[in-house]
Amino acid sequence: MELAELQRIIEATYGDRDRRRGVPSTVAWLAEELGELAQAVRKGTADQQRHEFADVLAWVASLANQMDIDLTQAIERYASGCPRCSASPCACA
Amino acid sequence: MELAELQRIIEATYGDRDRRRGVPSTVAWLAEELGELAQAVRKGTADQQRHEFADVLAWVASLANQMDIDLTQAIERYASGCPRCSASPCACA
Repeated sequence: MELAELQRIIEATYGDRDRRRGVPSTVAWLAEELGELAQAVRKGTADQQRHEFADVLAWVASLANQMDIDLTQAIERYASGCPRCSASPCACA
Repeated sequence: MELAELQRIIEATYGDRDRRRGVPSTVAWLAEELGELAQAVRKGTADQQRHEFADVLAWVASLANQMDIDLTQAIERYASGCPRCSASPCACA
């Protein structure tokens, strides 16, 4: 799935509600979901891990939507390798 | 950018090093980057926000790589609307 498509889907599904809750609430939800992902990584099944990875991506997309951030543009930072050393594999010390 | 491409790029650029550090370290780095994103959302410029969104996505991809999780498969959970109510917009109470 394209990042732009992810942002579109999350906007259509949750955009109105998430915007009503506002940015600080979205940051809080994202932090909560990251905690759930950390737990699933530590002791969950692969299905539970997939579930939590998806939830984190969904909340990142919702937050980006509210901040008018284009994730496709943002991730260009990594498109040519490490943003610091410009190498792939990264050659930073 | 496709999620699969993101996972490929991050694997090529950071895979060996991140795997040597291990999963708990990757979770810790992801948590740190989420904190930086939260700060950028609160008081950063749009460029700083893009930077931090990209870093969070990069660490999510690295963690998924180490857990052998396919983010494209994971996000299918949201492809047809809300995973709970199957509606888009979500109709959950």
